Amino acid sequence: MKASQFFISTLKEAPTDAEVASHRLMLRAGLIKKLGAGIYTYLPMGLRVIRKVERIVREEMDAAGAIELTMPVVQPAELWQETGRFEKMGPELLRIKDRHERDFVVQPTSEEVVTDLARQELRSYKQLPKNFYQIQTKFRDERRPRFGLMRGREFTMKDAYSFDRDRDAAQASYQAMAAAYRRIFERFGLRYRAVAADSGAIGGDLSEEFQVIAATGEDAIVYCPHSDYAANLEKAEALAPAGPRPAPSQPLTLTPTPGRSTCADVAELLGLPLARTVKSLVLATDEINERDELVGSRIWLLLLRGDHDMNEVKVGKLPGLNLGYRFATEAEIMAHFGTRPGYLGPIGLKRPVQVLADREVALMADWVCGANQADHHLTGVNWGRDLPEPDLVADIRNVLPGDPSPDGAGELLIERGIEVGHVFYLGTKYSRAMNATFLDEDGKPKPFEMGCYGIGITRLPAAAIEQNHDERGIIWPDAIAPFTAVICPIGMERSPAVREAAERLYAELKALGVDVLLDDRGERPGAMFADWELIGVPHRITVGDKGLKDGQIEYQHRREAQASKLELAQALPWLRERLGV
Amino acid sequence: MKASQFFISTLKEAPTDAEVASHRLMLRAGLIKKLGAGIYTYLPMGLRVIRKVERIVREEMDAAGAIELTMPVVQPAELWQETGRFEKMGPELLRIKDRHERDFVVQPTSEEVVTDLARQELRSYKQLPKNFYQIQTKFRDERRPRFGLMRGREFTMKDAYSFDRDRDAAQASYQAMAAAYRRIFERFGLRYRAVAADSGAIGGDLSEEFQVIAATGEDAIVYCPHSDYAANLEKAEALAPAGPRPAPSQPLTLTPTPGRSTCADVAELLGLPLARTVKSLVLATDEINERDELVGSRIWLLLLRGDHDMNEVKVGKLPGLNLGYRFATEAEIMAHFGTRPGYLGPIGLKRPVQVLADREVALMADWVCGANQADHHLTGVNWGRDLPEPDLVADIRNVLPGDPSPDGAGELLIERGIEVGHVFYLGTKYSRAMNATFLDEDGKPKPFEMGCYGIGITRLPAAAIEQNHDERGIIWPDAIAPFTAVICPIGMERSPAVREAAERLYAELKALGVDVLLDDRGERPGAMFADWELIGVPHRITVGDKGLKDGQIEYQHRREAQASKLELAQALPWLRERLGV
Repeated sequence: MKASQFFISTLKEAPTDAEVASHRLMLRAGLIKKLGAGIYTYLPMGLRVIRKVERIVREEMDAAGAIELTMPVVQPAELWQETGRFEKMGPELLRIKDRHERDFVVQPTSEEVVTDLARQELRSYKQLPKNFYQIQTKFRDERRPRFGLMRGREFTMKDAYSFDRDRDAAQASYQAMAAAYRRIFERFGLRYRAVAADSGAIGGDLSEEFQVIAATGEDAIVYCPHSDYAANLEKAEALAPAGPRPAPSQPLTLTPTPGRSTCADVAELLGLPLARTVKSLVLATDEINERDELVGSRIWLLLLRGDHDMNEVKVGKLPGLNLGYRFATEAEIMAHFGTRPGYLGPIGLKRPVQVLADREVALMADWVCGANQADHHLTGVNWGRDLPEPDLVADIRNVLPGDPSPDGAGELLIERGIEVGHVFYLGTKYSRAMNATFLDEDGKPKPFEMGCYGIGITRLPAAAIEQNHDERGIIWPDAIAPFTAVICPIGMERSPAVREAAERLYAELKALGVDVLLDDRGERPGAMFADWELIGVPHRITVGDKGLKDGQIEYQHRREAQASKLELAQALPWLRERLGV
Repeated sequence: MKASQFFISTLKEAPTDAEVASHRLMLRAGLIKKLGAGIYTYLPMGLRVIRKVERIVREEMDAAGAIELTMPVVQPAELWQETGRFEKMGPELLRIKDRHERDFVVQPTSEEVVTDLARQELRSYKQLPKNFYQIQTKFRDERRPRFGLMRGREFTMKDAYSFDRDRDAAQASYQAMAAAYRRIFERFGLRYRAVAADSGAIGGDLSEEFQVIAATGEDAIVYCPHSDYAANLEKAEALAPAGPRPAPSQPLTLTPTPGRSTCADVAELLGLPLARTVKSLVLATDEINERDELVGSRIWLLLLRGDHDMNEVKVGKLPGLNLGYRFATEAEIMAHFGTRPGYLGPIGLKRPVQVLADREVALMADWVCGANQADHHLTGVNWGRDLPEPDLVADIRNVLPGDPSPDGAGELLIERGIEVGHVFYLGTKYSRAMNATFLDEDGKPKPFEMGCYGIGITRLPAAAIEQNHDERGIIWPDAIAPFTAVICPIGMERSPAVREAAERLYAELKALGVDVLLDDRGERPGAMFADWELIGVPHRITVGDKGLKDGQIEYQHRREAQASKLELAQALPWLRERLGV
């Protein structure tokens, strides 16, 4: 490609509403252009990146035996009503009416359509397994679209759906996809982690997120540097500490702590480590009868070490709490504890509450907690002696860096990531809802065991930039760069030697299959270099009169601070090695 | 590809609502699946065809210097309000509201968005010419979607838009696109015609339709078999006949024609050729004042030879009629002619009318027309002698087969076609409406001269099938076949020799880059052959034990009635030549 035949549009400044680096750089480098809130035109430079992402995904999906099709963007509401999602999904589902006032949606995903296809087309176990995928436009009407392609409304997703006879086969399909995803993310050339994720109500461990590592990522990733263990914060298990619980060594003492309502304040006042304090969180669960009337509520006291945070997902899976919980109201707290938050504890309750202790707390001795009395805490608190054993002991906290890895391989670390892929075992959730069955070998209809597998095609470039940029611009990995290499001739209009050398090198690299651009715009060197550093092409070759006099050209990788000189005669073999062609 | 790894779904019968061959065959061959009215899933087999169409289009667009980008499917209404199309377009424009009740459309085309892009990005004449294209999902909410992908609601279109400094440059861009379209349609391997089309109000000749020839086509194509001349029926000129007008040889005679109200009936009664009669059509144009009030109407009498049909597009371009016309009401006809339709003519009018004669009628002598008196016609009518010369003489009729070609190369023929591409000079229609200007060399802002260029990506396969099918199924041209070749092994499970020969040939053809499928499903030969004849793969190779004993396999092209035997040892070079690889 020659620059004069292409469309290059760089900006000195990004619009002020671009809050993150990838958004700013994608706008400045002319990769995307905003059309509306969360709606972008993919400009030629950006589309090249997206196409390379698509190609890698397509090749690996095909290699893994998935079969490409395309499901419509505009989908009839009837199918979405079968699963209840037409009503259940919030306003992020874009609902529309056609000229005949019939209801449609603009697809955010395609579980309903693909399940409908399967129930019509896959009649027999002999046709299984099958895995259908598409790379298609999606729409989610985000309340607050932002960060450019990171959280847009219109976006492109690769979504795949597997159909299997039984759970074992579904597990094999799932593992094949997880392996394909690893190959895909390797090929992108990005640092990433495959992270165990919570699989929600379905249970089991068959849910992994593919997170691109970036300091600005929205998600916390827990990993062990000495093993493969990685999980998102919601999922990562805090191991039970080694027991047994130490014996009590202090007396229970009511201690004035005026105005000290947080664990940190109390620890400071008493000169104790924060880890000796226990914080009290009060939740409530409501009992609803068949007529949807509230018939009663139960109050839960959660006890966590002062330096630990509650993990809402873990709490939400516990018996009694797994149908939904809320934080207790102030009135409920007053009625059960007789005082306001800040001085709550498990001793001296006004009414019975369910006491739920984190594993860590259950093994503590001589701890500190609120006294259920304003401006007072209890010190030297001990299970069994001062209060009954907890009603329930469970892992209800977020892990912290330094916690032991669940696989025993060392200490955990935490870093930030951007979720770009997700593989998920769906079970029979959709097939049962839509009565999608096949005839098994025994002649009986069975619901398909399903999995779904997504990659955010247009989100990936944004994540890649969050991970790979500097103050000058983007730094693309070769695999998804808009161009792998750029040739920058200096003074091409004036110097036939420069033109000739640049054109020849361009032709030679093209013949080798290198995705190379010749910048024949006639820009000054400074402006030209700034453009390509902003756009982030990894390999830059500069051809100028000065160097040519000595038979030399220059090469600079986008990550290097300095250019190196190459003998023109040796340039091609050297570049072949460097570019791996 | 092996069939066992793919998705093949053929039907014995098509749904009864499939009215045309392409719709029936696309459903039966498992290329598409209906999701809703005019909304289809592209099944794996169909998607392969679409991808091949896309690739050819993309390669030729790139080669012609067009630059690919992708504009959003969901577009803010504001831009559509700038050009007035948000209001002007009928209900086929799918209008939607987002969660904040803001108006959007699902794009049917992208003139507004691309013009908005140009006015922001193309500031200087130095950036011109530019031609942006996309291959993207479109939606038109057709009142009556039908014929499968031929007239669907959701479809894929390649739309390109050129931006130029002036009319000459725009003309060059237009010609480059028209040439690219010729290459594209050549590569598809279809019989097609590039047909001059009416360019509407903009004028000039810069509008061509690319029509795939098919007996079932909706459009009539006029062409000269001895030259390149081709035009759609609306556009094709009926040459002025050679003059001069013969001298009158018959007296004007009032002739009773009781109950004979059509030219054909009158000609039969009088024993004259139909070409001696003249039919009268009465139109009206309304004069509207600035306050949109009707201030008067003018009545037009159109005279056409009895065997000719009026061409509404040609009439609509004549002075006085080019702001809109309608057929006259019966009251208006009674007031001006004193009788009902069936016996109207230009002689003996009650009130003045504008007489508009077709070129052919203007040169006739001794003709027959209505007498403006029930059950009577006039014979021996002659211009000048019996009535004044017409107020206006023009080409207002459709051409007929046998008419002379406007380029003088012989007689015209008419065939039917399906419009799949259109190149169109837009002028400054959109750039003026949206104030999209660039700074020209003289430092002054000028509106872009634009062109637009479409190809119906998902319509093309339907058109290809209308042109190429028989009672057994589809017959694809190689370039867009879902697979170029299929290997059908007979009894592969039982015979290691068959398996080995089939697998080896499959590997050899794949290595040559042939898009070949190995049918390893284990179907019986009859069912297997029927499937591939229905699906329409052009080249079929059969490997069976019987032939292998004599060292032979069989080859059959989809258009051939019989298979031919090939020596296995010579098969590969023979197939290479046949497949052109």
